Amino acid sequence: MAQLLPQALVAAIDELGKLPGVGARTAERYAYFLLRADSTTSQKLAASLTKLHTGVKSCPVTFALIDADEEVSSLYSDPERDKSLIAVVEEPLDIVALERTGQFKGTYHVLGGAISPIDGVGPEQLHIPELAARIEKDNVKELIIATNASVEGESTALFLQRYIKDKGLEVTMSRLARGIPVGVDLEYADQITLAHALEGRKAF
Amino acid sequence: MAQLLPQALVAAIDELGKLPGVGARTAERYAYFLLRADSTTSQKLAASLTKLHTGVKSCPVTFALIDADEEVSSLYSDPERDKSLIAVVEEPLDIVALERTGQFKGTYHVLGGAISPIDGVGPEQLHIPELAARIEKDNVKELIIATNASVEGESTALFLQRYIKDKGLEVTMSRLARGIPVGVDLEYADQITLAHALEGRKAF
Repeated sequence: MAQLLPQALVAAIDELGKLPGVGARTAERYAYFLLRADSTTSQKLAASLTKLHTGVKSCPVTFALIDADEEVSSLYSDPERDKSLIAVVEEPLDIVALERTGQFKGTYHVLGGAISPIDGVGPEQLHIPELAARIEKDNVKELIIATNASVEGESTALFLQRYIKDKGLEVTMSRLARGIPVGVDLEYADQITLAHALEGRKAF
Repeated sequence: MAQLLPQALVAAIDELGKLPGVGARTAERYAYFLLRADSTTSQKLAASLTKLHTGVKSCPVTFALIDADEEVSSLYSDPERDKSLIAVVEEPLDIVALERTGQFKGTYHVLGGAISPIDGVGPEQLHIPELAARIEKDNVKELIIATNASVEGESTALFLQRYIKDKGLEVTMSRLARGIPVGVDLEYADQITLAHALEGRKAF
């Protein structure tokens, strides 16, 4: 079979196909869209990707993603944020989700993943010692362990709870509430969520 | 609200969000994937996008996409392809779909879309005069009108049929068969497809 598409298009399809969840058809659609659009669209996308790694670094205290020219996360350095309260999350983007609630005035600590023996991720790969150091240094009073509601997230939460206790650190620890999401009918809730919702029921 | 994500990451999310069907969450996932992956992944993607427009052009005869340094589509210049038979398609990627069947030995003509008054696309925006010129020049005997099975594709097919007749061009014209796709149960076929399948039934 002769080559059906120009090499430059095939190259773009191949590279776009490396994005997570993007199959051959979707990659074709993206590449063809970019080809039909004004060339500035693909040029601007290319420029943003070129600068992605050099423009971003990890905050050395919270491990949130920050601008390469920042020293620490502004969510940490901000004097309005309560440094004695830390929400512990798995990934940097989880911070965005929690900030969107507008309800949290503490600081964050990104673990950099969750304990997952299958994926070869043990506690030693996560930013756990740094969390212990922060608890001592910033005189932290409360930890909200906001790891995911997955098996890995739960294991990580349990591990952290024991780790902090074993270190003799005096800090209140809590876990985000499990229950029925807003707008979801009871009949569609899975049994584990429903069991959590029953257990965590609140008095009027 | 303070800026939650580094500017370079926000820029990449914004640009990725311009791809068709990509919302904010998907764009975040793509950008974060690229950020976590080795920087060569985003560099290679960026490089392929930079070269996309300069590396691709339209074949002046068939309007298929070709390498910028090619003169005409290899599917047209190939002496093994029958120039007296043309499959008329809406978009360049439709050629790839037809070539995958391995059943077609003619040449292609890309219209560059379909007639769609709502989107402001009239026959004058499509490569229809060039098709008429090809029919005369290459002594074309048969046209397979392989536009989509959409309202726009059907209107375009009807328009082409009349246009070619009005020009007094003597050429056999056909349309791709409509029917039940392979592997689909009768009960899941929509009524229009089923009506087409009945009408186009084949004797044993």
